[in-house]
Amino acid sequence: MGLNSYGGAIVYIDLTKEKVAKKKLDEDFAKGYLGCKGFGARILYDEVSPRVDPFAPENKIILSVGPLTGTSAFGPKCSLVTKSPLTGGFLDSNIGGHIGPELKYAGYDTIVISGRSKRPVYLLIDDDNIEFKKADHLWGKDTHETDRLIKKELNDSDVHIASIGPAGENLVRFACITSDLYRQAGRGGSGAVWGSKKLKAIAIQGSRSVNIANEELFLKYSHDLRKATLEGGGPFATYGTMLFVDLINEYGMLPTKNFQSGVFPEVKKINGDAMLKTIKSKDRACFACSMHCANFCVVKHGSYAPFNIEGPEYETTTMVGPNCGLGNLEAIAYINLLCDKVGLDTISTGNIIGFSMECYEKGVLTKRDTNGLRLTWGNHEAMVELIKKITYREGIGNTLAEGVKSASKEIGKGAEKYAMHVKGLEMPAYDPRGAVGIGLGYATANRGACHSRAWTISEEVMGKLDRFSIEGKPMLVSVKMHRKNIIDALGICEQMGLLPIYVDLLSAATGWNVQAMHNKTYPSLIEDFKIKNENIMIGERIYNLARAFNIREGFRRKEDTLPKRFFEEPLPEGAAEGHFINSDEFDKMLSEYYKIKGWDKNGIPTRKKLVELNLEDVAEDLWS
Amino acid sequence: MGLNSYGGAIVYIDLTKEKVAKKKLDEDFAKGYLGCKGFGARILYDEVSPRVDPFAPENKIILSVGPLTGTSAFGPKCSLVTKSPLTGGFLDSNIGGHIGPELKYAGYDTIVISGRSKRPVYLLIDDDNIEFKKADHLWGKDTHETDRLIKKELNDSDVHIASIGPAGENLVRFACITSDLYRQAGRGGSGAVWGSKKLKAIAIQGSRSVNIANEELFLKYSHDLRKATLEGGGPFATYGTMLFVDLINEYGMLPTKNFQSGVFPEVKKINGDAMLKTIKSKDRACFACSMHCANFCVVKHGSYAPFNIEGPEYETTTMVGPNCGLGNLEAIAYINLLCDKVGLDTISTGNIIGFSMECYEKGVLTKRDTNGLRLTWGNHEAMVELIKKITYREGIGNTLAEGVKSASKEIGKGAEKYAMHVKGLEMPAYDPRGAVGIGLGYATANRGACHSRAWTISEEVMGKLDRFSIEGKPMLVSVKMHRKNIIDALGICEQMGLLPIYVDLLSAATGWNVQAMHNKTYPSLIEDFKIKNENIMIGERIYNLARAFNIREGFRRKEDTLPKRFFEEPLPEGAAEGHFINSDEFDKMLSEYYKIKGWDKNGIPTRKKLVELNLEDVAEDLWS
Repeated sequence: MGLNSYGGAIVYIDLTKEKVAKKKLDEDFAKGYLGCKGFGARILYDEVSPRVDPFAPENKIILSVGPLTGTSAFGPKCSLVTKSPLTGGFLDSNIGGHIGPELKYAGYDTIVISGRSKRPVYLLIDDDNIEFKKADHLWGKDTHETDRLIKKELNDSDVHIASIGPAGENLVRFACITSDLYRQAGRGGSGAVWGSKKLKAIAIQGSRSVNIANEELFLKYSHDLRKATLEGGGPFATYGTMLFVDLINEYGMLPTKNFQSGVFPEVKKINGDAMLKTIKSKDRACFACSMHCANFCVVKHGSYAPFNIEGPEYETTTMVGPNCGLGNLEAIAYINLLCDKVGLDTISTGNIIGFSMECYEKGVLTKRDTNGLRLTWGNHEAMVELIKKITYREGIGNTLAEGVKSASKEIGKGAEKYAMHVKGLEMPAYDPRGAVGIGLGYATANRGACHSRAWTISEEVMGKLDRFSIEGKPMLVSVKMHRKNIIDALGICEQMGLLPIYVDLLSAATGWNVQAMHNKTYPSLIEDFKIKNENIMIGERIYNLARAFNIREGFRRKEDTLPKRFFEEPLPEGAAEGHFINSDEFDKMLSEYYKIKGWDKNGIPTRKKLVELNLEDVAEDLWS
Repeated sequence: MGLNSYGGAIVYIDLTKEKVAKKKLDEDFAKGYLGCKGFGARILYDEVSPRVDPFAPENKIILSVGPLTGTSAFGPKCSLVTKSPLTGGFLDSNIGGHIGPELKYAGYDTIVISGRSKRPVYLLIDDDNIEFKKADHLWGKDTHETDRLIKKELNDSDVHIASIGPAGENLVRFACITSDLYRQAGRGGSGAVWGSKKLKAIAIQGSRSVNIANEELFLKYSHDLRKATLEGGGPFATYGTMLFVDLINEYGMLPTKNFQSGVFPEVKKINGDAMLKTIKSKDRACFACSMHCANFCVVKHGSYAPFNIEGPEYETTTMVGPNCGLGNLEAIAYINLLCDKVGLDTISTGNIIGFSMECYEKGVLTKRDTNGLRLTWGNHEAMVELIKKITYREGIGNTLAEGVKSASKEIGKGAEKYAMHVKGLEMPAYDPRGAVGIGLGYATANRGACHSRAWTISEEVMGKLDRFSIEGKPMLVSVKMHRKNIIDALGICEQMGLLPIYVDLLSAATGWNVQAMHNKTYPSLIEDFKIKNENIMIGERIYNLARAFNIREGFRRKEDTLPKRFFEEPLPEGAAEGHFINSDEFDKMLSEYYKIKGWDKNGIPTRKKLVELNLEDVAEDLWS
């Protein structure tokens, strides 16, 4: 047994040579980066050199768990870090469910996968035993079938499996990893990286326990956590993220018809209440979580019935629904299921279909381009066909499989102005014209347009800040970015909003003296964690390290921006009618943000800042 | 929410009419019978009239969980009570794994299934929603395939499934229920009762929580339980029941060649160490259990490799191995897997194959009878073939499918003296000539020859009692029977040996004041539980109620006996060499046992005893 509450080992898996090497987890490394995204960021920075093609054998897939994973203090997320085939930059993506705890129970904090297998392969991780298993018979199968076939061949239904579908195999640049049928590392195209390595799946079964430094205290705190969740869950426990459909529509910022509007007239057909009334069967939860925000749905009506699904979530519902002009919850749920099976990120898929539909509406794409598909708003039969074309790279699907940024360039004829992305990552389901802070978050998140790296909705929409003003937003986004990096390094869930309890839980689990650094401007938010005698903000360090990875790849200020539509076209209706983002103000906000962060005017972390964060080697890389 | 720590409802499912009716759980009923076997025993007694054919629609299948099921105080067992097609008497059988907690989470303490479906059916229990689902496409499929197909059709890998294989469909009288691939309600033929009702499977997914009366106290006690298990597990945590192979062989009571010997010369090839060295991959556990006594094995060598299996356990290993003269652990494991899949009880299967092999050795069965199968000791290829013949009732398999008692009668030519059973239930893996107390347990257990209703091995072999003497055994078996009925009413595991902690746990969970009744003769054993102000021994009540069910069916003293071999043939070798059970002494022991129990000399519970146990109505049935 190594460090308290850690698995104790990092394992390196070389797919080219079919070799496995293990390394003991170092305590200083653990203290410096905590786990999950923190571990992944440091290893990616150190081991993937600049300008490596994301599909080259030299790119790495780094799966990590955190110090609370697999304990009663529910932190179920398994972090996946790699170089993104969509952005060419840093990518981290989280998988909920059960695969994370299983990895910890197998005795590992991190798996680093490199190389490229000659033939399709899947990894079996069974405590000390790690095997390269043939996957020729699985290649071409969807993720649900792959899950079943591996369980069958292992005679084991307790094993947890993450796999790619045909989309990942075919290197669709927004292919995802699906685990436990319904849990995805969705964003950024990690599924295509697996595909490039001929890695079909990872099956994990662990049987070890997690050592806790102060058991009694830990038990008490995790009981407090459970209590707080059960008592504080409220409607979120019932609706999950579907709670936001109505809210965001009311505020006029629900992406509709490829961000042409922020109001969807048919919202009542697809909101949380509609889900409850028509398809929801029961709550579901990630490992050990008492929030149970997930919804298991039994769809008995509509063209695709009968089928069951865990989901859809808010993002999927909005991007596949309103953003494609689709007001049919059964069809949205079916498209969600289809994406889970073929292994496509639902956010990017909804975004790209919305883009294609706007191109079709504007005459930029015609029936000749689409092999006869009528890409009219809300045409879900066409959406299903288009998803198949993307998955198998047929016709227009082959173009779209490259992501909205590349596809819009290839299509030409002005299509680029309909491509809603940042750094190549397709925009998610909040229109930043209705909350400029989240726009700043999109622009400055390392993986591209991401709503969950600085989810300012709680302050801008549900809170007291003026959502249309840039006032206070740089500091807000800065604090949130640090906070989220802590959340993502611990592997806990953003939805919990209970970070203060985690300070105590982490201290009890590890035996370290963990301190929370409260922010004066936003006292309700924890800005960062530090561990006593380690005078470093851990979240800030991780954020800057990932930023440095991008800087090394050539990313600069010009990449920290938003699609032109948000600067040029005011929202045409609803509560945010007339609002757009003033580009000068955006620039001012960005400069102020850089200043707060200690970055120069090009957005490069200064030597001083990096040294302050104990990232001397990184400072050397960027500034020597 | 109903009673603390209970699901709160009993559900009646009529397969003939496809109707469902629910009833609130009554607090007096819960206090009087606790749960699991207790609930099943009372309902079976009340609702299945005497002389009902076990395969008639009027027979019922009663699945129940207990007050600790699904909590951190691991009590994972789901009890199945029905009228046995092997004995024609009371049958209770437990399933470990995860199906029990799932039933509790769905909000039920008990499901009572009656009637007979016209077509193959499976039940989907999804909280309030209970559906009769077509199972024509599942009929004929093995239990593993059934598990996969149901999960596929529900798009759900979180559902837990119990099912029968072709053996149950074909009414093999020792067919079992398989749940979660490797957990069985093994003994007594409950699988055939499902088959007679055309019930292929039950799929359960529950999403409710369990209300605990005193949470803080309960958490503390369950932490104590976990600690005690982790610290006290020792070799049992590593070997599980496989620990007993060597021990029982050393004591010369390991059933070998159909109980012709108690010593197996090849024991080192199949014992716990052999398992650890050759096939064991890792520990496995039932729901929430920190004992993790189960063994997951990866078999890479031998005629049947590669395959994986959870198991084999001690009983399977001994009955399929030594009892059939087989010293090949890989073959034993494969036969275990085969039985799990076709749905056959491994104990009865090993017993019946051993019986067939002795018949073959003695010339009572010849190649003409077996369709050319050479039933020589240790011939595992023939064993595999014979299992298939039994499953599909082909040739000799059709005879053997009736159980060893009926088969031996049908075969004739003196075969009855090789039939090792009590009341029709095949003997398990302890030769009672090496421990007469367990022989008394076999004779007086309500379901027939069962080692686990009064497992006296701890006192007779591992303890201080003279194993060959009848001295003190009636009291020992009496105490153990009560104790086991408590264990089986709580749904906890016999292997835990931690009943004192459960007294506190049950009090904290329910809010009742539960007291343990310690026995003066065996102070380390808890004789029974009672709940304050309810001056009744709950274990004794349940045991007598099941006994009364059998009495009503015509069972008397003459059924409380053992196969003649144990009275007539001394063990030929080993540490128990020369020992047999003196039939006069056995009779004396039985009389003393009846006296302790308050039964008359025919073995019928007296009116006085029944009234004392608050079973006035039962007294009326038996004595009016």
